[in-house]
Amino acid sequence: MSPTRPVFIISDHTGITAEIIGKSLLSQFPGEAFATESLPFVDTLDKAKDAANRIRDAWKVSSLKPLIFSTMTDVEARAVLDATGAVVMDVYGHFLGMMIGELGRPAVPVKGQSHSASDVDAYHDRIDAVNFSLAADDGLSTQKYDLADLILVGVSRCGKTPTSLYMAMQYGLKVANYPLTPENFEQPGLPESLRPYIGKLRGLTLKPERLAQIRSERRPNSRYAALETCRQELADGEKMMSEAGIKVLDSSARSVEEIAALLRQSLLKQDK
Amino acid sequence: MSPTRPVFIISDHTGITAEIIGKSLLSQFPGEAFATESLPFVDTLDKAKDAANRIRDAWKVSSLKPLIFSTMTDVEARAVLDATGAVVMDVYGHFLGMMIGELGRPAVPVKGQSHSASDVDAYHDRIDAVNFSLAADDGLSTQKYDLADLILVGVSRCGKTPTSLYMAMQYGLKVANYPLTPENFEQPGLPESLRPYIGKLRGLTLKPERLAQIRSERRPNSRYAALETCRQELADGEKMMSEAGIKVLDSSARSVEEIAALLRQSLLKQDK
Repeated sequence: MSPTRPVFIISDHTGITAEIIGKSLLSQFPGEAFATESLPFVDTLDKAKDAANRIRDAWKVSSLKPLIFSTMTDVEARAVLDATGAVVMDVYGHFLGMMIGELGRPAVPVKGQSHSASDVDAYHDRIDAVNFSLAADDGLSTQKYDLADLILVGVSRCGKTPTSLYMAMQYGLKVANYPLTPENFEQPGLPESLRPYIGKLRGLTLKPERLAQIRSERRPNSRYAALETCRQELADGEKMMSEAGIKVLDSSARSVEEIAALLRQSLLKQDK
Repeated sequence: MSPTRPVFIISDHTGITAEIIGKSLLSQFPGEAFATESLPFVDTLDKAKDAANRIRDAWKVSSLKPLIFSTMTDVEARAVLDATGAVVMDVYGHFLGMMIGELGRPAVPVKGQSHSASDVDAYHDRIDAVNFSLAADDGLSTQKYDLADLILVGVSRCGKTPTSLYMAMQYGLKVANYPLTPENFEQPGLPESLRPYIGKLRGLTLKPERLAQIRSERRPNSRYAALETCRQELADGEKMMSEAGIKVLDSSARSVEEIAALLRQSLLKQDK
């Protein structure tokens, strides 16, 4: 076991970009021990100096050189972090330099543009999409399906709701979701409310064992959570969706982000 | 108006990291015209070659050198993109090199670790948190407040729900939210269900004009959306929260991400 190395996520804004980059890079060194601290909203030179002092203190305590993931728009503040001698990986410092070289013009250092509400239209679209997805969760608001970018279909607890919300939040897509229930399987063909929207439908499924586990957390020892029930519903659901020509994704070993990115890709391909 | 410059977001996985970095950097060059295309799941050498061809084609059409934001774990695939001669900003190529130098050991290039379900516990925590936040939305499930990390309080439509969901999804925090209604203001003190949880409560407020605008989208020309109603409810809410010693954030000019990061920071500070 290696000793613990201090890691700081430092940003003059929310720190979300720096956090994602840090997480992504640290995960490629399994077996190393990291102690991560987030310092968002470091937006004055004094705060940058405080952050630099914390870096120096942590370095003294651990004796391992700290890693810094940062997004600092202010050149002076960046220099304060650099002066600690830690490994400073600053997205703006490096890549912005490349962009300025290519575009032949200076950057306009507005703090944390990507996670502010400054692009008002895009931001409203995302919030509208979240509200749409909440209103059209779990088979509600089928009268609004005309407005949906995507309608997720699948049996209860197969991952539709988190996926819908994530796609709305991240991509600004209006995603409805419709649960397939045992009653639906008694009728031939797709449920009526889905039929006019075949191009917007995508299916989710997963392994019966995984579904039984998820349902058991909600209603232990119920018929609803029994492996046999899950197996039957999933089989019926997959059959219905495949007969209707709906593309189905298996969410068993995929994160919400992975499913969301795959679904978005399948929508973009269709649009072309 | 500048001519449009091609931009590609290329990843061997979801592309979420590359997309966030690209958005953040591009936003610092207002006035430049960019045409952005996302190519996720470029996870074979052949797909990397296809991507390189698209870069070359786009360059020919626009005559401006394309910008590439990428996260490619495979060194060969990265070389294929570099060979296009475009401005390739690859997070792994640059920062991973710095980390390997410092840690003195090779990286384990697992694709898209940060957005996969590979850290199973952390991933389940996040999905649990999303389910909690949905179940405890809008004053529901107050009997579960013991389990909440945070309970957001504020009048109807002041941003509680998207903030709760975002914090759950991004940080794995269990965030409930409780709406303050005119009936609450007729009684002295906080609503009863909130009183045992004072340390977990945070308030949201916003400008009356903004609230009236948001409510009007939902119910145009209603008493609910009238500026006077909004002004009164917000004043009553702010008074109630300030008397109870609840920290209140103004969400008028802040994005969900900004509010989420500020709230999380205030929770972390309290824990210390």
